[in-house]
Amino acid sequence: MPSISPIYLEDLAVGQVFRSGPTEIGVDRIRSFAAEFDPQPFHLDEDAASSSLFGRLVASGWQTAAITMRLLVDGELKIAGGLIGLGVESIRWPRPVYPGDVLRVESEIVEVRPSHSNPDRGIVRIRSTTFNQDDQPVMIQTASLVVPRRPGHQP
Amino acid sequence: MPSISPIYLEDLAVGQVFRSGPTEIGVDRIRSFAAEFDPQPFHLDEDAASSSLFGRLVASGWQTAAITMRLLVDGELKIAGGLIGLGVESIRWPRPVYPGDVLRVESEIVEVRPSHSNPDRGIVRIRSTTFNQDDQPVMIQTASLVVPRRPGHQP
Repeated sequence: MPSISPIYLEDLAVGQVFRSGPTEIGVDRIRSFAAEFDPQPFHLDEDAASSSLFGRLVASGWQTAAITMRLLVDGELKIAGGLIGLGVESIRWPRPVYPGDVLRVESEIVEVRPSHSNPDRGIVRIRSTTFNQDDQPVMIQTASLVVPRRPGHQP
Repeated sequence: MPSISPIYLEDLAVGQVFRSGPTEIGVDRIRSFAAEFDPQPFHLDEDAASSSLFGRLVASGWQTAAITMRLLVDGELKIAGGLIGLGVESIRWPRPVYPGDVLRVESEIVEVRPSHSNPDRGIVRIRSTTFNQDDQPVMIQTASLVVPRRPGHQP
């Protein structure tokens, strides 16, 4: 569902799917993110990682989450006013992200609900799955976004 | 609950609280994270942010999440083998993080459960609240961690 004009609440319906382009995660990106945000041996050093639960160097799950956000911002879901999250109700990391993995995101609309307290907006629940190059999910999250109603809509 | 030796499943009990030190988020950190992971106007530019839902420049919620991870890694909860998340069951961002905010984290153990399939480990659910300098929560998350049992425990 490619889209150029900004998306309003009225444009969204349960079951719609929005996609992103791909991005590769090299070992340098894994190490530099880890050094700043998650300096644990299994994210920093191949040798130390080999004796960890993972058995080899893996990306921080929070890096996967941050990269997923970037893919969403650059992807098809161009919400008017931006992608503004109210909260996340679930994140799972069913398998690790390894150096050289190529990630992309598919997002499905799971609920569209006008706000009663703020008639100019609504809440949209969206399930985003981040896949690696083998189409295996590496992160699955369900989040709630604030989405404006189209200006001039009849309440 | 300061701790020097690594923490095993047997050391954890519901209600224990672990704390982190503080970290300041300057405007440069907000902009550089946003440029890489969440390039939306309200995270990048004070002028553009003034006409957004937030009214001023705010940090990406994913930056707050990543900084929270760093505070946890550097904080009192020194789990043997590291902080390894299985998943997150909830994240809320009850208020924005602004340039100059100073964040810290308090984590409370909410469940300790030995694994039946892997007798050498257990699952610990933990609720971490990230506070600003006015002791207002800016992020509340509940996550599940994999925690090893003490070597030589009797199953």
